[in-house]
Amino acid sequence: MKKPLKIGIAGLGTVGAGVVKILAEHGRLLAQRGGRPIKLVAVSARSRAKKRDIDLEGVRWERDPMALATASDIDVVVELIGGSGGIARRLVGKSLASGKHVVTANKALLAMHGAEIAAAAEKKDVMVGFEAAVAGGIPIIKALREGLVGNRVRRLYGILNGTCNYILTTMRETGRDFDVVLGEAQAAGYAEADPSFDVDGIDAAHKLAVLTGAAFGTRVNFAGIHIEGIRHVTSMDIEFAQELGYRIKLLGLARETKYGVEQRVHPCMVPLAAPIAHIEGVFNAVVVEGDHVGTTMFQGRGAGQGPTASAVVADLVDVARGRSMPAFVVPAAQLVDRAISPMDRHVGAYYMRLMVQDRPGVIAAVSTILAKERISLESMLQRGRSPSGKVPVVLTTHENEEAAMRRAAARIGKLKAVLEEPCIIRIEQF
Amino acid sequence: MKKPLKIGIAGLGTVGAGVVKILAEHGRLLAQRGGRPIKLVAVSARSRAKKRDIDLEGVRWERDPMALATASDIDVVVELIGGSGGIARRLVGKSLASGKHVVTANKALLAMHGAEIAAAAEKKDVMVGFEAAVAGGIPIIKALREGLVGNRVRRLYGILNGTCNYILTTMRETGRDFDVVLGEAQAAGYAEADPSFDVDGIDAAHKLAVLTGAAFGTRVNFAGIHIEGIRHVTSMDIEFAQELGYRIKLLGLARETKYGVEQRVHPCMVPLAAPIAHIEGVFNAVVVEGDHVGTTMFQGRGAGQGPTASAVVADLVDVARGRSMPAFVVPAAQLVDRAISPMDRHVGAYYMRLMVQDRPGVIAAVSTILAKERISLESMLQRGRSPSGKVPVVLTTHENEEAAMRRAAARIGKLKAVLEEPCIIRIEQF
Repeated sequence: MKKPLKIGIAGLGTVGAGVVKILAEHGRLLAQRGGRPIKLVAVSARSRAKKRDIDLEGVRWERDPMALATASDIDVVVELIGGSGGIARRLVGKSLASGKHVVTANKALLAMHGAEIAAAAEKKDVMVGFEAAVAGGIPIIKALREGLVGNRVRRLYGILNGTCNYILTTMRETGRDFDVVLGEAQAAGYAEADPSFDVDGIDAAHKLAVLTGAAFGTRVNFAGIHIEGIRHVTSMDIEFAQELGYRIKLLGLARETKYGVEQRVHPCMVPLAAPIAHIEGVFNAVVVEGDHVGTTMFQGRGAGQGPTASAVVADLVDVARGRSMPAFVVPAAQLVDRAISPMDRHVGAYYMRLMVQDRPGVIAAVSTILAKERISLESMLQRGRSPSGKVPVVLTTHENEEAAMRRAAARIGKLKAVLEEPCIIRIEQF
Repeated sequence: MKKPLKIGIAGLGTVGAGVVKILAEHGRLLAQRGGRPIKLVAVSARSRAKKRDIDLEGVRWERDPMALATASDIDVVVELIGGSGGIARRLVGKSLASGKHVVTANKALLAMHGAEIAAAAEKKDVMVGFEAAVAGGIPIIKALREGLVGNRVRRLYGILNGTCNYILTTMRETGRDFDVVLGEAQAAGYAEADPSFDVDGIDAAHKLAVLTGAAFGTRVNFAGIHIEGIRHVTSMDIEFAQELGYRIKLLGLARETKYGVEQRVHPCMVPLAAPIAHIEGVFNAVVVEGDHVGTTMFQGRGAGQGPTASAVVADLVDVARGRSMPAFVVPAAQLVDRAISPMDRHVGAYYMRLMVQDRPGVIAAVSTILAKERISLESMLQRGRSPSGKVPVVLTTHENEEAAMRRAAARIGKLKAVLEEPCIIRIEQF
């Protein structure tokens, strides 16, 4: 048997503890599969006293995680601290510079400094694995970098944030509103006390940035992502979506357009016939459209101890086998800076919900504004009467440019009879 | 740039031509991604004159494919001839023995001689890639051997034959019978002139054998698979399935039981709530349940030029990068021979359709036989009246042993009022 692969783990939260558990439980299996044992030699975490239900007998405790980066008995540093800067970034940088392989679940770090990290790894000819950073246990990074490597990716999109998908699913199933469902999700531990990272689309955008890099061979570009969260989605919109044959999902999407690479995270109306419409609750899914393979979809649990630790361990076995690959499909020096395809130039169909005063002439005024922008309607729904005199009007459009849609929405929002800001949700056709 | 990886392709049918096309179209991309160019140096096929719409300028034509196995200028032999024996087997054996890597799409060969091939590859320290052998473009072999390597697989199952799935989908959508739909599929080129490989479940079983090996680290054991095809599924059964909340799919399933490894291919009643129930037409999907990752599903096109060639090229890039792995997760010498879990001991729920004479006492007789075998019913449906006096009776059972179910069915089939052999379809709960 070859000599063991020696690892140090920084961060013993849910995922870190999960990795320790798998290594202990499947030690023999992993040694067989990886060609040599994977041995945990050191760990570092904020609190040594915290109860974790893992056995750390014989494992060195480092008070300072940075000590892992230079320890002579460590081959791989597993960074599970999180955050795009601070200690996580320093630890990853120092570890790579010291010639150690790095495995990380840190999407924020990769979204912000992915190209820099890829270059640092290549400089020392070491590997950086981040399967756990995107979509939990789903081996989507491996699929993009290896399994589908024979394809030019035309488009990819996915449900990348389990919290948002859980909230949207529950809103649909119960008819309750966003705030109520968010509160319940927080109480149940499915959403953070400060939910903005999730519900405002930041977390999904971090993951999309990483996926885009791995799929298109472009420098990771978080700043180039158009991001909208799900706070403005009402149970009324969810109901209308159903009526129109759609389901509302927070998607991260990337594709090449004639202007460059378009990356966006926002709620979408997804046709019920599309498989991704049926990914519910905390599940994640990623669809990859390749020029030869066609449409493929990968689904599974996007978070949690077992799935995320499973992805970390897969990266460790790759390191054990010396099965390397540039972090983002092509060598760091060959990663290209593609132009950002501007959202104003986005072409797609739209759903618009207006809350209007129930009186004659409103529809005519709205239609006139849309016609002026050459936006053609696909359907219009008006809902009965209301004692308050305030009724929803829902319209869907054929494909047109986002800029025109925004101009129209701004003018419609200023009509006296329109009582709230128009709610706009993009419709995706798959 | 490192020196090119030089390949020879044996077999220029749909898939072979597809590989040539991708190599030509994405040459630069693949050189970047694989770290060196992939160069086609020689091909061999039955007919040189056949029109293939590919450019073979500068590529050596070998009349005898076996010449590829020993050619000094070839690093990888791509075997796309097919068949479990004959020339394909000899070519793969000779190539490996000559120290060449092998990439193949040949599921029949792997199902029959997988362990032997794995051992031959290891002996010479070369790679054998067969991503294209199972589920077309879906990178499921990579997922099992690498992406989910940190898991003990509890169960896997999948829609592995696009022809059967197309037939079952079309039967459901049109209400037409098996023979009619098969005939149309043959006319449209979705089914072979001799369809038995597909519709009798052999092709799916070949693929299941390979998947089981990669998932469980067992010696590939095609002979240990219980195989039933879809010929006995009627449009009436498909209708009843719908009514009961199921969809009928031909699945390949493998799991560990207390008796060993259970491998089976047969039509299943799949709950409509299960994602795999919605994989329609020629699409394939594989579900892997791991002890840490939970349930993951991979779907895409299971056949055709682009998807299958995409998988072949992915294997070639793995070879170019030297990213190796034992063929079936663990070294060939460590592959275990697990006992075959006998179908008699299979425990599951069942659907049984009887065609009976519409007269009093039949249900009582059937119920008595079931009760004697301690089979408890979950539901029973009896359909109206018929001028012929022949009506269907459908019953579903709770979980019980297959042996008991078979004994009961045999006795029920002998009742005078039962006019046809009972049609039994297993119900799977996911």
